[in-house]
Amino acid sequence: MTELGKLYGLGIGPGDPELLTLKAHRILTTVPIIAYPASENGKSLARAIAAEFIRSDQIEIPIHLPFNVNESSAPYYDQAAEQIGEHLKTGQDVAVLCEGEPMLYGSFMYIFQRLSGQFPTEVVPGISSTLASAAMLGVPLTYRHDVLSIIPATLDEIKLRDRLIVADAAVIIKLGRHFAKVRKILDELGLLERSLYIERATQTEQKIIDITEVEAKEVPYWSLILIPSN
Amino acid sequence: MTELGKLYGLGIGPGDPELLTLKAHRILTTVPIIAYPASENGKSLARAIAAEFIRSDQIEIPIHLPFNVNESSAPYYDQAAEQIGEHLKTGQDVAVLCEGEPMLYGSFMYIFQRLSGQFPTEVVPGISSTLASAAMLGVPLTYRHDVLSIIPATLDEIKLRDRLIVADAAVIIKLGRHFAKVRKILDELGLLERSLYIERATQTEQKIIDITEVEAKEVPYWSLILIPSN
Repeated sequence: MTELGKLYGLGIGPGDPELLTLKAHRILTTVPIIAYPASENGKSLARAIAAEFIRSDQIEIPIHLPFNVNESSAPYYDQAAEQIGEHLKTGQDVAVLCEGEPMLYGSFMYIFQRLSGQFPTEVVPGISSTLASAAMLGVPLTYRHDVLSIIPATLDEIKLRDRLIVADAAVIIKLGRHFAKVRKILDELGLLERSLYIERATQTEQKIIDITEVEAKEVPYWSLILIPSN
Repeated sequence: MTELGKLYGLGIGPGDPELLTLKAHRILTTVPIIAYPASENGKSLARAIAAEFIRSDQIEIPIHLPFNVNESSAPYYDQAAEQIGEHLKTGQDVAVLCEGEPMLYGSFMYIFQRLSGQFPTEVVPGISSTLASAAMLGVPLTYRHDVLSIIPATLDEIKLRDRLIVADAAVIIKLGRHFAKVRKILDELGLLERSLYIERATQTEQKIIDITEVEAKEVPYWSLILIPSN
């Protein structure tokens, strides 16, 4: 019987290729097959982050995900998992690249759910933009006895407000089209002055903008607001 | 006039030396001077993590911190900052090693506060054990619209309970002598079954123990409880 290949979930960090860990770099440059999430038109942030390390003799599996946020990703992950599983069955290792930290809102979790029961699996932690943004903004994020909350901007207003009221420090992620709603709540809670905005942290296109000057319509998904400890 | 040296805050991750980033590794192996927190007897987790990369011709500055948790660390950081500042003034770069992520409860924040106004400073994000533990435990931590709370076990019972009640997913850090208090609250809130215990994540001495079998007296500071999204 052929020995099964190993499935790696590789955290490749928030954007700067130099923020890959030594371990992710070693695995990425030695596996025969890599997979990564990509939009339907083939664009992939994960692949772009790792691009300089990918060899031309590595097989690439783009995991195509739907553009439309209301369309379920499940069948797309099913298909990718099947394709990855075929390689693992023949004894080849597959590294699935994942922006940031794979186990924190990471796309890899959906591959993990589908395959980790059947194949040897190892997850390699990566730098999460949620925490790395503090270094980019030059502010300590959380001190001593303070609680840090990582809050998706996709929550409704009531829940967002409730969570922000009790947070000592917070990172609000997945802003995109939710920016205006979040800004309004921060204003109401008197938190706007403490709030710092950054988009595409550590990527070459990184932008830090005064939160009062951010254009709601231009806020990308890969942006966040940081509220450091008082 | 001599050009000032650059102060680096280097996140070196939770324990496995291979979890240094390529960037932290590059800086660590090229600066003339490194500093790191150490207990009064000279023990230093940060130095141990980076040990294999440290060259014999690098100057080392241990930042001695008090054993006694009730003694203020401020004068110790004052002294270290002065010593580091002397080198920076002569144009030499200094890298301050910091376990995990420097801006998240990191010891480097206290050096940052004292020196970043006077010297060019760069903080290099590191892998935080708070997030890396999920990979070690093999569980996805936070999904979709869920809020993740990072909660110090040092909080009093009432605050701990309040924060845990509203958390979708949580990481309780700095357990040490606070374990019994935390375990009791998790039990009361019906969260014990979902709670996973790990100590010294990614270090060679890493231990994963069923939370109901953990001996309160033996819980080290470098341990945490992870409560993944439901």
